[in-house]
Amino acid sequence: MRYLLGIMQGKPAKESYVETVQQVMPGDTNTLGTVFGGKVMEWIDIAGAVSAMRHVRRPVVTASFDRVDFHAPARIGHFLILQSRVNYTGRTSLEVEVTVNAEDPMTGDRFLTTNAFLTFVAIDQNNKPVLVPPVIPETEEEKKRFEEGKARREERLRTKNANNHKS
Amino acid sequence: MRYLLGIMQGKPAKESYVETVQQVMPGDTNTLGTVFGGKVMEWIDIAGAVSAMRHVRRPVVTASFDRVDFHAPARIGHFLILQSRVNYTGRTSLEVEVTVNAEDPMTGDRFLTTNAFLTFVAIDQNNKPVLVPPVIPETEEEKKRFEEGKARREERLRTKNANNHKS
Amino acid sequence: MRYLLGIMQGKPAKESYVETVQQVMPGDTNTLGTVFGGKVMEWIDIAGAVSAMRHVRRPVVTASFDRVDFHAPARIGHFLILQSRVNYTGRTSLEVEVTVNAEDPMTGDRFLTTNAFLTFVAIDQNNKPVLVPPVIPETEEEKKRFEEGKARREERLRTKNANNHKS
Amino acid sequence: MRYLLGIMQGKPAKESYVETVQQVMPGDTNTLGTVFGGKVMEWIDIAGAVSAMRHVRRPVVTASFDRVDFHAPARIGHFLILQSRVNYTGRTSLEVEVTVNAEDPMTGDRFLTTNAFLTFVAIDQNNKPVLVPPVIPETEEEKKRFEEGKARREERLRTKNANNHKS
Amino acid sequence: MRYLLGIMQGKPAKESYVETVQQVMPGDTNTLGTVFGGKVMEWIDIAGAVSAMRHVRRPVVTASFDRVDFHAPARIGHFLILQSRVNYTGRTSLEVEVTVNAEDPMTGDRFLTTNAFLTFVAIDQNNKPVLVPPVIPETEEEKKRFEEGKARREERLRTKNANNHKS
Amino acid sequence: MRYLLGIMQGKPAKESYVETVQQVMPGDTNTLGTVFGGKVMEWIDIAGAVSAMRHVRRPVVTASFDRVDFHAPARIGHFLILQSRVNYTGRTSLEVEVTVNAEDPMTGDRFLTTNAFLTFVAIDQNNKPVLVPPVIPETEEEKKRFEEGKARREERLRTKNANNHKS
Repeated sequence: MRYLLGIMQGKPAKESYVETVQQVMPGDTNTLGTVFGGKVMEWIDIAGAVSAMRHVRRPVVTASFDRVDFHAPARIGHFLILQSRVNYTGRTSLEVEVTVNAEDPMTGDRFLTTNAFLTFVAIDQNNKPVLVPPVIPETEEEKKRFEEGKARREERLRTKNANNHKS
Repeated sequence: MRYLLGIMQGKPAKESYVETVQQVMPGDTNTLGTVFGGKVMEWIDIAGAVSAMRHVRRPVVTASFDRVDFHAPARIGHFLILQSRVNYTGRTSLEVEVTVNAEDPMTGDRFLTTNAFLTFVAIDQNNKPVLVPPVIPETEEEKKRFEEGKARREERLRTKNANNHKS
Repeated sequence: MRYLLGIMQGKPAKESYVETVQQVMPGDTNTLGTVFGGKVMEWIDIAGAVSAMRHVRRPVVTASFDRVDFHAPARIGHFLILQSRVNYTGRTSLEVEVTVNAEDPMTGDRFLTTNAFLTFVAIDQNNKPVLVPPVIPETEEEKKRFEEGKARREERLRTKNANNHKS
Repeated sequence: MRYLLGIMQGKPAKESYVETVQQVMPGDTNTLGTVFGGKVMEWIDIAGAVSAMRHVRRPVVTASFDRVDFHAPARIGHFLILQSRVNYTGRTSLEVEVTVNAEDPMTGDRFLTTNAFLTFVAIDQNNKPVLVPPVIPETEEEKKRFEEGKARREERLRTKNANNHKS
Repeated sequence: MRYLLGIMQGKPAKESYVETVQQVMPGDTNTLGTVFGGKVMEWIDIAGAVSAMRHVRRPVVTASFDRVDFHAPARIGHFLILQSRVNYTGRTSLEVEVTVNAEDPMTGDRFLTTNAFLTFVAIDQNNKPVLVPPVIPETEEEKKRFEEGKARREERLRTKNANNHKS
Repeated sequence: MRYLLGIMQGKPAKESYVETVQQVMPGDTNTLGTVFGGKVMEWIDIAGAVSAMRHVRRPVVTASFDRVDFHAPARIGHFLILQSRVNYTGRTSLEVEVTVNAEDPMTGDRFLTTNAFLTFVAIDQNNKPVLVPPVIPETEEEKKRFEEGKARREERLRTKNANNHKS
């Protein structure tokens, strides 16, 4: 696989930022009366894919959910505000972070319910990975996200190798 | 029913603005391979209710869909960007407009698919209508929306009376 | 676009009348414990499309929901009786009215919950509008519906023009 | 359990007759592109329960699907017309038959896809079976259905006893 | 239709045995707070089809639900354990039995909720029935199931003929 | 928070093992015609929760998806075999691993599609974490899973601390 480096132009992080709102309906709840985790994952997967496709403007596949933390449960009626952004890009993959805050519809109070890191891979018409344009972090926060995304990536590669040695 | 006028503070239109994104999945389509109108209405109803509740911070009920125009169909894979805003407030009701644009995920091209006007009513714990805070239009566009919302309201009342005379 | 007028035979209104029944299940409710408006719209869209297709025997698309009024909410367990009929036909479009009554399963009491007017357009294989057969109102009620549908249509055209002058 | 016989008035079969229409959407299909059998069963269960509750005006539970025959598959876009009627009543149970015809939306041609016999039991607030009002068959067809329902019931009791002897 | 008998090898019953687990979520319930029968039928249809396809390794269609008995209702949160097995094979059809037990998640107690007998038919690329490999019952229980399946089949043919004489 | 250590008896890993089968239906697919990742996550969450609840026999909440790898996509019609097991237990949390294999219904060929590690926390009636019984690994494979689960846990705590130092 040979890539034509240098041809592909970078894209500012803010161009793939996505914000979306869902409301927790009775059919979305688990047996404890709070939002069903599987449903939240579904919404996260869609929001993340929209960011990834806005960045690469090609089909993408979810390669992994690197980590999803459920901090606090949302209840029936709560709004869920999903914010999705491209933190970091490798050669053919990109790290997207989706943050889910719940908003109490009666007070406007918000609290963090879920935070997720996903890796997407861009593919061509033969389902082969293709180069992705580099993300350009502009603000301080975006630069910090980029560096942390890079560190997580290296950590994952390190762990993978360690696991391979073990087995 | 007696209201304490003057007590209730207005709220700028921008505070209840909502933008949300959905992707058209195979299970959301009709028999022509485009997005099922009933599904779009469902998403419109949720986005509109979020705007309405953010404005009044009380439970609301959908009183009517005053008009929904389907301009062009979205296809599988398209993103649907729903933008919802409070145009106009009456005493106990408010007009919310939801605009739905489709975005081609491969090109970023957008086109208008659907435009909807909804009326919500805020209710108390006995399901009785309650006063809503007046919306404060600030920009030129918001002021235009307010005036047009007011005109639509008066038109509806006029039509209603005309209909009553007929029957 | 040239139409061969006179060739197309009319069809009595009663041939496209549809009655259908749904039951409100827990997964169909909103956060107030009553039926979710978006779900009702979905059922209305299907019932209306069946009437429209029975009249034209071609694919149809929903052009608009001209007005949907939610009069009273139905609760879990209620039956919803949807009655759908072609009120009026233009050249390429038709007005369908869907009335939704709730029935208490324990008593049989019924009350009106929702009333909707929809406009459908019949299309050919290139998604172009085609002529629709005229609806033939036979009973007094059907004739009244036809006249009122015609008046609503003219009102909509009038409003549209007024809006165009404004902008 | 003591019943006050004679108090309960019979009810004509036609009062619990239900007709309902669904359209087969892409999300309702199986992997062969025809309507998913499990989805049809769901619609049958709801239509049957509406007939049963209209007859007894009490909560009912599905005791059994005595037999469901899938005669021919419906495809995407087909209308499904479900007709549900109370064939026969025992002391605390009733037999409901649901017939499902598919209608080609372009031609109006109809063909039988599914036929189902269900037994419902009426229950009181302690979930105990209660007497049901006898169904009154009026037309020749209703009388034939009543006799055949009675024969099926006796056959089922006979088979059950035979099975009990075996084990 | 000519079959090449003797060519097709039998397959032990245990090779098509399927066990699957679902949890009753709020969106799966009926208006009595217990699992909706139509939903259980859907899960039964899928589990049964998996057994049938594992036995024949061809597309199958559900020909009939010969009998489904609802013994006791499961509640929100209960696990449903579906066990599906091929009882008996004819020439082109096979009988699959699906047993559904509910498990209380807090105690592990199990009870039978539903038992279903289904007939599947294997089809070729023209949707024509094809020969199915004979199931080979090995254990005592499997042999008993085979004999009872055969008896049910003969009973159904007998009833069908009796019904034909009547009409 | 004080725990009465020593009182709680361990439970063999095999007692909470769960195997479940789903079939990919058209309504479960994404825009590439393969199974939608969000749907797989939903099924993983349910299978994992069943294992966790079988181990602790108390309500559990999903604390995190520690890692989900999508190895290869499943297509419409494929069976998905989910295998869920408790790998490791801490004081109040447990690691569950869910492995998802796809099975081609026509050939029986299987391939790994997804592998997920989840952490569940057992809670009491006040939603406070409670001690979980230790899992007892018995086979060589179970012992290896236990050790690897323990290593992952320590790695996560290490990473968390490193992250805290950073910010």
